[in-house]
Amino acid sequence: MIQFYAPDIRENLQLSPEESVHCIRVLRKKAGDEIWITDGCGLRYRCVITVADPRGVRIEILSATEIDKSWDFNLTIAVAPTKNADRMAWLVEKCTEVGVDRIIFMECRHSERKNINVSRLRRNAISAMNQSLKTRLPEIPDLQPFDRILELEGEKYFGYCDFTTERVDYAMALVSNRAPGNIIVAIGPEGDFSPEEVNAMKEAGFLAVTFGDERLRTETAAFYSATAAHILIPRFLRDVTK
Amino acid sequence: MIQFYAPDIRENLQLSPEESVHCIRVLRKKAGDEIWITDGCGLRYRCVITVADPRGVRIEILSATEIDKSWDFNLTIAVAPTKNADRMAWLVEKCTEVGVDRIIFMECRHSERKNINVSRLRRNAISAMNQSLKTRLPEIPDLQPFDRILELEGEKYFGYCDFTTERVDYAMALVSNRAPGNIIVAIGPEGDFSPEEVNAMKEAGFLAVTFGDERLRTETAAFYSATAAHILIPRFLRDVTK
Repeated sequence: MIQFYAPDIRENLQLSPEESVHCIRVLRKKAGDEIWITDGCGLRYRCVITVADPRGVRIEILSATEIDKSWDFNLTIAVAPTKNADRMAWLVEKCTEVGVDRIIFMECRHSERKNINVSRLRRNAISAMNQSLKTRLPEIPDLQPFDRILELEGEKYFGYCDFTTERVDYAMALVSNRAPGNIIVAIGPEGDFSPEEVNAMKEAGFLAVTFGDERLRTETAAFYSATAAHILIPRFLRDVTK
Repeated sequence: MIQFYAPDIRENLQLSPEESVHCIRVLRKKAGDEIWITDGCGLRYRCVITVADPRGVRIEILSATEIDKSWDFNLTIAVAPTKNADRMAWLVEKCTEVGVDRIIFMECRHSERKNINVSRLRRNAISAMNQSLKTRLPEIPDLQPFDRILELEGEKYFGYCDFTTERVDYAMALVSNRAPGNIIVAIGPEGDFSPEEVNAMKEAGFLAVTFGDERLRTETAAFYSATAAHILIPRFLRDVTK
């Protein structure tokens, strides 16, 4: 079964022009074929195509199912935009595949670009959500000023490369949380966070972490930190109250 | 400091034309500048540029250091080539960054392509090794017939999507190994391994595993399995003899 995205499918029994072209021209679906449609908020609809129009596929809903998220924490990756736009697209695709709730691109002092094509990145997220059969679309806000991430609440970490600073191992920090609910991981640009940004994050309760011995690119560190949460939290959480 | 690759630097005090162009035209290095050069086999040389020729940078060796691999297991990822060549390039780059010893592309029954540009993939590995300051280049053999992976020796796993087959959790299998030495993870094509391939792998001692609840693309599963080994083995190994 193939999944499509239509956020307002309850009100409007039709796919967007973009999803319609993909459905009819690329996947060659026809009237009478069954497809899945998600609203990106947890609901998946089993539907049948009534009009196979590539400008706007018309459908009928056969049934609806609420699909639970398969991870029971809330994960925000806050990351500096990379110079290369493809690396950001990749980051969004891979984090969506492995499972993320929100990706915030943030403008840092040493950011290599000051603008992002957020529509393209949201399309990457939709496509990865559909491909991996998820029903919850990660939130991707417009580019945010750095200071906004200081207001976030949760278990807060930032990856930091400066080995003269005291840092803890990210994996061990994750499993030592008593009840990880909201996890926020901030990843800086290639030129790293500025000393002012580091101080501001520390004051806001962010913990400086390392991701092991390897030197990872920005987008790889983002994926590593999401993957680590998915691997560790369901299996290796330690009861630190004992 | 910037690192370059020259496998025979001891015999020939010169960079390849490709590395030379990168050194002189892109990074604008000059005679007298110091650079690092690795042979891809664990040695890193501190060098000084004597002739800044973009067709062949001449250097002098100042000192040599043997750099230990930062992981103490041997990891082979055997993976079906993906239809999209960029996804393979990405797989090689990311696995090299996070740390892998060998990447074998294998021809499976349902493989989406029957040939790979192994020179391009090796260049991706060199570039990721230099960027992440590693000194050991992962081995990337030519495309191998599927049967060749059956001969590999070690702790052997294959990712399998068929939920009617008995499978174990990859993360838990990894940490339950008494002494993980050679780890081999086989990842099939989008159309999955064929039943004959599955039987052959089982007979050869491969264990069917899952990578959690998410549906991952081939290249994402490869990166996930490498990342899991790096996260889990140094920190969460269980003494199953107890």
